[in-house]
Amino acid sequence: ERRVDFPVSVVLPAGGTGERTGLQTPKQFCSFLGRQLISYTIQAFERVSWIQTIVVVVAKENTDLMTDIIQRFQHRKVRVVPGGSTRHRSICNGVLALGSGQDEEGGSTAERPKVVIIHDAVRPFVEEDFLYKIAMAAKEQGAAGAIRPLVSTVIATTSEGYLDHSLERAKYRASEMPQGFTYDVIHQAYQSCTESDFEFGTECLHLALQYCGTNAKLIEGPPTLWKVTYKRDLAAAESIIKEALSRTACVITGGSAQAVTLAEALQKAVGALEMELDAIPDLMGDNARYLVTEWNFIHVSISGSCLSEVEALLTALEAANRAILHPLVVILVHLSTSDELSISGRMAEPAAITDLASAAKLRNIFVYGVLLQQSKDTDCWERSVLRVAEITSALIRERSSALVGQLLQA
Amino acid sequence: ERRVDFPVSVVLPAGGTGERTGLQTPKQFCSFLGRQLISYTIQAFERVSWIQTIVVVVAKENTDLMTDIIQRFQHRKVRVVPGGSTRHRSICNGVLALGSGQDEEGGSTAERPKVVIIHDAVRPFVEEDFLYKIAMAAKEQGAAGAIRPLVSTVIATTSEGYLDHSLERAKYRASEMPQGFTYDVIHQAYQSCTESDFEFGTECLHLALQYCGTNAKLIEGPPTLWKVTYKRDLAAAESIIKEALSRTACVITGGSAQAVTLAEALQKAVGALEMELDAIPDLMGDNARYLVTEWNFIHVSISGSCLSEVEALLTALEAANRAILHPLVVILVHLSTSDELSISGRMAEPAAITDLASAAKLRNIFVYGVLLQQSKDTDCWERSVLRVAEITSALIRERSSALVGQLLQA
Ligand SMILES: [Mg+2]
Ligand SMILES: [Mg+2]
Repeated sequence: ERRVDFPVSVVLPAGGTGERTGLQTPKQFCSFLGRQLISYTIQAFERVSWIQTIVVVVAKENTDLMTDIIQRFQHRKVRVVPGGSTRHRSICNGVLALGSGQDEEGGSTAERPKVVIIHDAVRPFVEEDFLYKIAMAAKEQGAAGAIRPLVSTVIATTSEGYLDHSLERAKYRASEMPQGFTYDVIHQAYQSCTESDFEFGTECLHLALQYCGTNAKLIEGPPTLWKVTYKRDLAAAESIIKEALSRTACVITGGSAQAVTLAEALQKAVGALEMELDAIPDLMGDNARYLVTEWNFIHVSISGSCLSEVEALLTALEAANRAILHPLVVILVHLSTSDELSISGRMAEPAAITDLASAAKLRNIFVYGVLLQQSKDTDCWERSVLRVAEITSALIRERSSALVGQLLQA
Repeated sequence: ERRVDFPVSVVLPAGGTGERTGLQTPKQFCSFLGRQLISYTIQAFERVSWIQTIVVVVAKENTDLMTDIIQRFQHRKVRVVPGGSTRHRSICNGVLALGSGQDEEGGSTAERPKVVIIHDAVRPFVEEDFLYKIAMAAKEQGAAGAIRPLVSTVIATTSEGYLDHSLERAKYRASEMPQGFTYDVIHQAYQSCTESDFEFGTECLHLALQYCGTNAKLIEGPPTLWKVTYKRDLAAAESIIKEALSRTACVITGGSAQAVTLAEALQKAVGALEMELDAIPDLMGDNARYLVTEWNFIHVSISGSCLSEVEALLTALEAANRAILHPLVVILVHLSTSDELSISGRMAEPAAITDLASAAKLRNIFVYGVLLQQSKDTDCWERSVLRVAEITSALIRERSSALVGQLLQA
């Protein structure tokens, strides 16, 4: 366990206008899976126990939106501070707010931090261990910053637009975020810097060097620190979240032999699709832990109605407050054992399932159904199981809200 | 119309091992929507009429895979050349192959190019107008290369890992691909350069400067030139292709008043979802053009079987050879007008549709069904139409192969 025995807070400038995304909305306020990018970034800091306060600096016109996001996704630790006309003015506002020990309404807040971490609202994948390195190096050296190897050769151009020379790549690095500073260094840097720095400067590290004589410690960060800049980066970020949510699922069998057999066959089949299934009879006792850890549930039923069990599952998930940050997926796999059910009445009460799914969707739980026909023919049965595996795995990966409530045929 | 009245060919080094993607397969051979990344890049050059030959340089162990890709996606203009031990040796092999006028089997090929364009196999979105600029500047100046503004501040580090200084961002650029050279310049550069250049050099532009005294013309390229490096970039590339394939769809109504009304309602509803629908009665006469331009078809039927019409559509699409490069989507929207059809027998012959969809999937055509119930209640009807719009638009955007053949309920 890593101990940080000094107060650390965060400034998250989020005043950008998103010109480069090709989108109307500033990119930090663009959504995927029903949530704005900035909320993912806030979450990355909020889950770190030793981080005290997260100051989000937003343009005046986005204050209401930001307040809504904080309420809706139940963010704690967050204070909203009005932005300035440039990135440095916004960061400076955030730093000063941390020093004041007061929030906008004059309420008292946490103690003045020893270290301030500055990050971008559009880099949602920063991890605790890297924040730890930045915080410790900042405390030690006064300043620390993330770097990455250069992805392209950097070249100097002549004034006419021709190649002048190329830089020796090994000697240079790209400066990224997060960066960390002792409160004193970043405060002093902003006290001392010029209007021109506020207007045109890009690097906090540079201000710390120029005005405090602090040479920042540079630490190589992982590629996931990249900045969401273009519309395609939003798709990339969404794919990373979706992949993280799709690695495992919990199959609830009810304990019947047929359902257990099906669950075991599914475990094998989805293994090839790079997903792991845990099969359990129910969510009682020790298995209740899945309610607080798992993002995907596959409920297997053999015949007759399973709606009351599924309703109980949905109620338990809601009670555990699980679907605040990410949509949960619940798939009803119904194994039909008698031939006359094949087309009409394929599953008990399809309309009831659709209604249940509509209600669950409002609580960010995506319910789908998959219908499977028992077969004595081994080949036919194996094909069906494989289809169930493909369909459930696709539903879990895609998390499509448009397909909620559909009954699919394996 | 832009005229290029001199021969231009392309060298596409594709020997990389993809260490940075976190994937087993080298990234140029990773697939999305059923096709390898390198095939998308080849396609980007192949559709440019004035490009003569595309030399793909691949490692020995990937030659068979590359040959398969060329056959499967019916690439013309492509020659496969074995790679060297470094990037520069591979590019050099490609350039020499263009000069030899012979392919591997000794057959004669196109004339020696005036200009050689060098690109990366993992930058699939290069556009004709930018290639034109590079080709013209290369012919004029001897060398030309794509540049982009720096996304991060570039910093120099001390040997102990501290900030030394940061570069003034405005003076530098990132050097990207494509780059263009006259054959004479790139040939001479590789003839003159040292073993050390072959081993450690990164920039063709630098070799042209050093060994031919040619200062390359630098041209700012669009952000879509970015290099697919990480797994997330594959998701980003996939999202760009999916978006390009999902902007429009063609609704075939059969001409009945009810179907036309439904088509008009759908047009309005998907408009809000940023998709445009063209409604046509059939694919006869002038409307046959949709068979060679459209990626998505929505076939509306009112009652009874529509299978023969859908089969005719699939046959026509196959005859037009349309699904070689991208999966086509065909959605059967079935409007049921009588109440007793609501649950059982919701659509004519669901098993027949599943079979048809399975067969079409083998030919890269994804068939789905959507069932819609006529309603006299205006609110209810509008909700249903909106659901059809959401479902069809999700199916078109997601192009999920796992859900092919499913009948969805609006
Ligand atoms: Mg900075
Ligand atoms: Mg190069």
